[in-house]
Amino acid sequence: MDSRTGLPVVGMVGGGQLARMTHQAAIALGQSLRVLAQSPQDGAALVAADVVIGEHTSYEDVLAFAAGCDVLTFDHEHVPPELIRSLASAGHTVHPGADALVHAQDKGVMRAALTRAGVPGPPWAAVSTVDDVADFGEAHGWPLVVKVARGGYDGRGVWFLPDVAAATELLSPDLSYIVEQRVPIVRELAALVARSPFGQVSVWPIVQTIQQDGICVEVIAPAPGLSEELAGQGASLAVRLADQLGVVGVMAVELFETAAGLLVNELAMRPHNSGHWTIEGARTSQFEQHLRAVLDYPLGTTSMTAPWVVMANVIGGSDGAMGIDERVHHVMARWPDVKLHLYGKTPREGRKLGHVTALGDDLAEVRERAGSAAAYLREGGHHG
Amino acid sequence: MDSRTGLPVVGMVGGGQLARMTHQAAIALGQSLRVLAQSPQDGAALVAADVVIGEHTSYEDVLAFAAGCDVLTFDHEHVPPELIRSLASAGHTVHPGADALVHAQDKGVMRAALTRAGVPGPPWAAVSTVDDVADFGEAHGWPLVVKVARGGYDGRGVWFLPDVAAATELLSPDLSYIVEQRVPIVRELAALVARSPFGQVSVWPIVQTIQQDGICVEVIAPAPGLSEELAGQGASLAVRLADQLGVVGVMAVELFETAAGLLVNELAMRPHNSGHWTIEGARTSQFEQHLRAVLDYPLGTTSMTAPWVVMANVIGGSDGAMGIDERVHHVMARWPDVKLHLYGKTPREGRKLGHVTALGDDLAEVRERAGSAAAYLREGGHHG
Repeated sequence: MDSRTGLPVVGMVGGGQLARMTHQAAIALGQSLRVLAQSPQDGAALVAADVVIGEHTSYEDVLAFAAGCDVLTFDHEHVPPELIRSLASAGHTVHPGADALVHAQDKGVMRAALTRAGVPGPPWAAVSTVDDVADFGEAHGWPLVVKVARGGYDGRGVWFLPDVAAATELLSPDLSYIVEQRVPIVRELAALVARSPFGQVSVWPIVQTIQQDGICVEVIAPAPGLSEELAGQGASLAVRLADQLGVVGVMAVELFETAAGLLVNELAMRPHNSGHWTIEGARTSQFEQHLRAVLDYPLGTTSMTAPWVVMANVIGGSDGAMGIDERVHHVMARWPDVKLHLYGKTPREGRKLGHVTALGDDLAEVRERAGSAAAYLREGGHHG
Repeated sequence: MDSRTGLPVVGMVGGGQLARMTHQAAIALGQSLRVLAQSPQDGAALVAADVVIGEHTSYEDVLAFAAGCDVLTFDHEHVPPELIRSLASAGHTVHPGADALVHAQDKGVMRAALTRAGVPGPPWAAVSTVDDVADFGEAHGWPLVVKVARGGYDGRGVWFLPDVAAATELLSPDLSYIVEQRVPIVRELAALVARSPFGQVSVWPIVQTIQQDGICVEVIAPAPGLSEELAGQGASLAVRLADQLGVVGVMAVELFETAAGLLVNELAMRPHNSGHWTIEGARTSQFEQHLRAVLDYPLGTTSMTAPWVVMANVIGGSDGAMGIDERVHHVMARWPDVKLHLYGKTPREGRKLGHVTALGDDLAEVRERAGSAAAYLREGGHHG
């Protein structure tokens, strides 16, 4: 508790753009996010007053950081569960806790929990040898999907295997893997949910996410044309999972829409790229809600502020003659109602540099606006 | 320019809540506001990464602060004009400039400029002696209003004089004053405008402001029942003034609605309490717009996000048994769609600790929500 203001202190482990945007939300709540960053150049470290430089894998660093925090939470899922357990044993409040977070850290643990809970997902198996993969392929068909159980993100650590030969080159004896049937999907969706220690749960409308090369490039809220039945299924699935896994904070449930209904693809236990649209597009943003949840504050209203909200990621493109500041000028001039969010990063090809949000009544027009603004920021005007 | 991000650096002189909220807006634009604060406990100093402690009246302090800033701007109007002129002579870009800002610093200069520009205001005169006041009272009637020409704010430095005897006790030979006729007013309004160096100007809808004891307690956007004619007059008056005074950044024009039309009461050249509603209530907030304006970025859309938006200030009340954090819990539980903005201050009676914003379709209901939430935060539930 900050004795001067009488308000709590949240410590976030990790100093990326999620911490950066959480700090913006913390300011409104009278707080100042405490950030454990790896470098003073991390997105959140550039903007927050209370920054500690340290390693999220070092118990000493995280323990020292935790002193004076009312609750610890995370900008990413790379803090080892045993470290989180030690913090909890030392009397620190950590949300989400190790037993919940492991479901976002280990795809094998996640799949097993979902299977136990009766939550639909693709057929899957934990594998460690080529024979395991071959057996699964025999049973469920080729091609199939192999994923590193721990450490993959944004399409890294995920491979599509056309046949058993490909597995021979891929598997490392040092890692654990899961395989999943490659299910024919209609599209990708995401359900975003927040849960407090008290057990209050809130969901935002289900969104559609659009990937390119395994990276999310666009999010449409709400998912266009989604049947009420599937929207309801997605929301209740997210609420049930948050409850059963004991999640505290925001959880994103990445979903596949298939001919046979919704399947869970991945879980993330933190504010998530699929929820950036909520900053302008929902009455309560995922960043504010994450803070409210981990502090056991009552949750905020999640209703939308417009019929359609579209977020487009700004991903670093090839260097052009036009610097980023000039691109910003052009984008602001051409789309005065598109909202920019830049993360303070040095531009580099393929890097998520920021995002833009547009909203309105006409989906096609809103998508065009968000997509064009993001492309302009990426390419300096040259987009096809 | 920040060489790492390629984006500009704005330095704000003054570390209060306006700088605090401007920093939130700067983060989204990929920047980090540089703040010259008097104390590490100032609202913005508590949340910003790049804070310099110094005095805004010290040329050395401000000059050192300006190094590395692309533009300097202000959280308040207390920087002496000669200091701003010296900065400009030293090659620094300062917005608003000294020649514009003086109209928000000196009520005599402001009234003279408005009179020259043909902008309606109450009858007024610069006075320095009791005889001057008596003459004005003879000509324009009693009671009248006396204001310190420089340095007053939030009702301080303003007196209503019933008769000439009262003036005898009031006037100090060390200060300069103006007197104004006490005009019968229907209500108080405010026009908020932003202007860029390029000359682009944008206005938000005219709002009604409600004062208690000279302090703004509530702002309603748009001003209920304001005729299209008066709304148009208010907007064009604000645009004309911004242009004629050479304002760069946000300017608030406090207005009186009278039976004879609109009169200008005061000017402020910075984001203003009457514009806090724009954070959630307009597509572009006054804080983002101020940054866009002083950076000569194209201005953002100012349209409203809901039919009615009400902001209520949270003013420190008497100490109660319930701490601020507990009050926050109750307010969030009861009004999950009211947005809180707390400024990181130690609660003290009469101090502006924050504000809340509510919006919706039904004005009476929106006012009730905002007012009740603010009262609860102030009084811990005991409001009449």
